Amino acid sequence: MKIPPPDSGLLSLNTATVREKWSLREVIQGCARHGIRGISPWRDKLAEVGAKEAAKLIRDHGLKVTGLCRGGMFPVADRKGRQAALDDNLRAVEEAATLGARCLVLVAGGLPAGSKDLAGAREMVRDGLGELLDRARAAGVPLAIEPLHPMYCADRACINTLAQALDLCDQLDSGKGGALGVAVDVYHIWWDPQLRQGIERAGDKRLLAFHICDWLVPTTDLLNDRGMMGDGVIDLPRIRSWMEAAGYRGFHEVEIFSAKNWWKREPDDVLSVVKRRHQECC
Amino acid sequence: MKIPPPDSGLLSLNTATVREKWSLREVIQGCARHGIRGISPWRDKLAEVGAKEAAKLIRDHGLKVTGLCRGGMFPVADRKGRQAALDDNLRAVEEAATLGARCLVLVAGGLPAGSKDLAGAREMVRDGLGELLDRARAAGVPLAIEPLHPMYCADRACINTLAQALDLCDQLDSGKGGALGVAVDVYHIWWDPQLRQGIERAGDKRLLAFHICDWLVPTTDLLNDRGMMGDGVIDLPRIRSWMEAAGYRGFHEVEIFSAKNWWKREPDDVLSVVKRRHQECC
Repeated sequence: MKIPPPDSGLLSLNTATVREKWSLREVIQGCARHGIRGISPWRDKLAEVGAKEAAKLIRDHGLKVTGLCRGGMFPVADRKGRQAALDDNLRAVEEAATLGARCLVLVAGGLPAGSKDLAGAREMVRDGLGELLDRARAAGVPLAIEPLHPMYCADRACINTLAQALDLCDQLDSGKGGALGVAVDVYHIWWDPQLRQGIERAGDKRLLAFHICDWLVPTTDLLNDRGMMGDGVIDLPRIRSWMEAAGYRGFHEVEIFSAKNWWKREPDDVLSVVKRRHQECC
Repeated sequence: MKIPPPDSGLLSLNTATVREKWSLREVIQGCARHGIRGISPWRDKLAEVGAKEAAKLIRDHGLKVTGLCRGGMFPVADRKGRQAALDDNLRAVEEAATLGARCLVLVAGGLPAGSKDLAGAREMVRDGLGELLDRARAAGVPLAIEPLHPMYCADRACINTLAQALDLCDQLDSGKGGALGVAVDVYHIWWDPQLRQGIERAGDKRLLAFHICDWLVPTTDLLNDRGMMGDGVIDLPRIRSWMEAAGYRGFHEVEIFSAKNWWKREPDDVLSVVKRRHQECC
């Protein structure tokens, strides 16, 4: 059965997609110019103007903030480092609140330096998350755990499947109050044989963000070789249909790390392709 | 609790580890010279002398064949291609029988060219495996499904977790007769939060092979940047202890793809390091 194209009004742009050539201000103006109604800034871009000014700019251009990237990075070996991580996460929560972001996206963090204790790192994630959750809830900022591809387990995120992220949600927010959920990024979890079940299990209360791009064959770099939707092997309409069946009505956020291709192009051209591919391939 | 070092008599060498500098004959002689008692050839190496001559050489040097790499590659779009894949798998079964190999290692295969139908590819794996299994059973060759890292899902293997491989075992060999099992390669599944449970679930009947190496941080190449045991972040003694707790008493097979490092070194030096690291880091 052919899946109908997505609502073009649900397209959102993650600033990472054009990060090499555009400032935050230019991204905001670019989105408005191209009729893209959602934006998701990374914090380094936000720092260019500050959260308050950014919030005003974004509002003035009629955009919604579909997420702030990112907090997390919980596993740290020493107490001082853990406190610094918490402080930084609290600043991220404040920024997300200022922006009125749909969620703060959390990348769990990998193994502490020199450690091989993966189970221990995962406990640190649970503990750090638990510590942050009350403060985020008080600030009205939902936290979205983003499972990252297993190839990032050691150095970026030791939460690598939707099931694992949802287990954390169950442990820390059993009431499903909406304060804790997941960011579904197809790049990281398209391969998971339990993906459909995970999306169903999450349900609309916990599906806080939906990130799209594509997996290229071959992939030549572990970090910065993501593809534009349609250029790879991910069945994007199918995964979107699972999201919708689970009740997700939020934005489709395009996040493409692409050192050799998309980052080198003119951002206005990139946005034109993004809009077209969203309709044709997602 | 400190885990005691492994039995040095259980060390096995996968020919991939020294494939750039040594012929199969040299690998066999090298293993004998270094007191390594197991060997696992790839079929391209086997082709140098043929299975019969290889079997004789290996026997004459007192080695055990801990596995033959590899069969599989089941998902193919057209009927003719599927038949060719089956024929090649049947030849691999014959070779494994001739060698008296502990198992034929199966790499499932990825998406057929141009396809995004991951569920369909996985069905092709199940069907192809089912077709091969009777013939392998008749030949007395156990088949070992090797789940590959999710980063290979598109182009090499769409079986990516131990749970998924074991589900296939349950479907196709519910009697646990030993004809179908898994190859546990730490490189592919060390990150899996369900790894311990998977090893327990497999049990000794289905744990047919144990492959070791290490995950480097950073990893600079998706294919050929595996680390020597001890140079990365995998807690090898712990995973071995899980294997042993599940009843596994087989070999520890060292398989390192390393274009920039180990493949460039003198194989005799590599084998010395392999032996030492097996004792110190595994």
